[in-house]
Amino acid sequence: MTKTRTAVHHDASSSSGDPQAIGRMVTSYDVAKLAGVSQSAVSRCFTPGKSVSERMRTKIMRAADELGYQPNAIARMLITKRSNLIAVIVSNLSVNPDFASILSQHMIERGLNLLFFTLDQDADADRAIQQLWQYRVDGVISAAELSVEQIGVLRERGIPLVFINRLYDVMGANSVGCDHAEGEGWLIEKLVSAGHSRFGIVAGPEASVVSRMRLRGALDKLAALGCAAPQVVHSDFTYAGGREAMRGLCGGKKRPDAIVCANDLMAIGCIDEARLALSLKVPDDVSVVGFDGYAPGQWGGYQLTTVRQPVASMVKAAVDMLVARIEEPSMATEKRVFSGELVEGSSARID
Amino acid sequence: MTKTRTAVHHDASSSSGDPQAIGRMVTSYDVAKLAGVSQSAVSRCFTPGKSVSERMRTKIMRAADELGYQPNAIARMLITKRSNLIAVIVSNLSVNPDFASILSQHMIERGLNLLFFTLDQDADADRAIQQLWQYRVDGVISAAELSVEQIGVLRERGIPLVFINRLYDVMGANSVGCDHAEGEGWLIEKLVSAGHSRFGIVAGPEASVVSRMRLRGALDKLAALGCAAPQVVHSDFTYAGGREAMRGLCGGKKRPDAIVCANDLMAIGCIDEARLALSLKVPDDVSVVGFDGYAPGQWGGYQLTTVRQPVASMVKAAVDMLVARIEEPSMATEKRVFSGELVEGSSARID
Repeated sequence: MTKTRTAVHHDASSSSGDPQAIGRMVTSYDVAKLAGVSQSAVSRCFTPGKSVSERMRTKIMRAADELGYQPNAIARMLITKRSNLIAVIVSNLSVNPDFASILSQHMIERGLNLLFFTLDQDADADRAIQQLWQYRVDGVISAAELSVEQIGVLRERGIPLVFINRLYDVMGANSVGCDHAEGEGWLIEKLVSAGHSRFGIVAGPEASVVSRMRLRGALDKLAALGCAAPQVVHSDFTYAGGREAMRGLCGGKKRPDAIVCANDLMAIGCIDEARLALSLKVPDDVSVVGFDGYAPGQWGGYQLTTVRQPVASMVKAAVDMLVARIEEPSMATEKRVFSGELVEGSSARID
Repeated sequence: MTKTRTAVHHDASSSSGDPQAIGRMVTSYDVAKLAGVSQSAVSRCFTPGKSVSERMRTKIMRAADELGYQPNAIARMLITKRSNLIAVIVSNLSVNPDFASILSQHMIERGLNLLFFTLDQDADADRAIQQLWQYRVDGVISAAELSVEQIGVLRERGIPLVFINRLYDVMGANSVGCDHAEGEGWLIEKLVSAGHSRFGIVAGPEASVVSRMRLRGALDKLAALGCAAPQVVHSDFTYAGGREAMRGLCGGKKRPDAIVCANDLMAIGCIDEARLALSLKVPDDVSVVGFDGYAPGQWGGYQLTTVRQPVASMVKAAVDMLVARIEEPSMATEKRVFSGELVEGSSARID
């Protein structure tokens, strides 16, 4: 037994590049023989989601430990064509700190692992798609925007794709999102019914799909309520961008009485600029609202009025949808849209 | 040609589980034949870090595109024993938002990919170690604490391990860190020479190695300067924990005149509690300092005096060290310790 275990360790630490090395490893056959059970019982015991009796598991685990057996994911991949790897693509702009942690927990529960790609530059998305194909991932969850061509490549290759927080009308692009327009509508309605009439909007980058949806929702609701057209400035979703946007909006004679920001971080920047640089009181002189549910927005000094995205529900739905599609690739393309939650803080005068 | 390409796509989207399917794929041999070059030239062209002439690359890429060739990472792994996968382990407490992004960029530059594990519970670390072994990762970077047993398992299996921001005196545990004690020493020195004498320390969880090193640094410097022993409370590294700790420290008769927090987030909580609940002015009534360089700490309302960790240098060093160890497993265990950077904000009365 000791000899066998040594062989396994040598296999892992060796850099000899011997292609036969994997053949020397302890196999499920060895474990089955020692445990006195069938090989398929051993396989079930090590396959997430499959079960064996407690007595069977004890026998198998004892034999596996004795032999130093570790089921080899790579070897299994060549047989089952499943890598149990899910590629997760995020961009710098789209990272919610809770996102990776919640996603990771859902993956663990399903026996899946997470191959992680962060996009900083445009070229990174092409690289990510090439790499995830090489590792034969079972599916992709993207919190970053992909081009129609990139979505097409994944579809052609039969790799299920689910966008999170990116709702696309592109063939094969499944998505889970928050109802941005509805949430902005709630905020505008509350602000208008509390008497606000001069609106300033701090949108995100023009290229951002999320920003466009939030802006559209705000503009439509303002028009529906018969309000004057708001001042709109585009910024970059950052704190510094929010401060600068606030200076721009409040520099003229007709200062807005309500500022609607496309995310919480810019709203925090607007509040700080109002208080620290413009000597304006929030919300007495100007109301500020955000969108996201970013934790620092709820700190005592800000208490942002905002719409919280249901991140946990969205992530769970994305993983559920992806797993369903891996099982059944012919499913029709689907969108799941969750309502946000209105958070009535103290950064806006509303009832 | 069309026929070949169809076969490749069918291979990817099929769920037939045919173990021969990979054998039907377009190989580097096919590409070499069509391009009229050697098979090793094709291999070099698709191997990160290896180069071929521009003319050669053009020929090969044209042939590869025509055939729909994608070098198969899995097949290559069985030959080279290199997966080009690096496991990255983080815990909820250790996540710096920039960390994943900076790490991802360094990985991309070296042709490496990132298998990502987040630990929420103690059992998750054992699972992560089992999984990363199954995927035959080339190495591990951990920003989470691992047990001596877990470190031992990786060492036995010959998997190089580098800790980031966790300095261990355990055999085989390479690490990259920030000099916590030095940084705390700077802060204490500045505070003492500005006349502070009644210190309160908000430490992190007792089990946290980082918290212990920061606390040790602060206590040693206070003792060396002949100051009275500070009040020490342990908290949980969160905003709410910081607020609660501040209430505890300032509730008694002899209120501290300086609060030293083990991270920026708790320092922010202390500042808010002082201003919003205790009606104390920061820094006039009480100085507050943090540690980390967390971006919100530099927002206009806080402008924390703190020590910024050199995250970019630390991450680059961790990747360099890991890659060197993968190339040369017999290297002696090594620690690399970077000095932080003192950020003189306006949350403390110092000169």
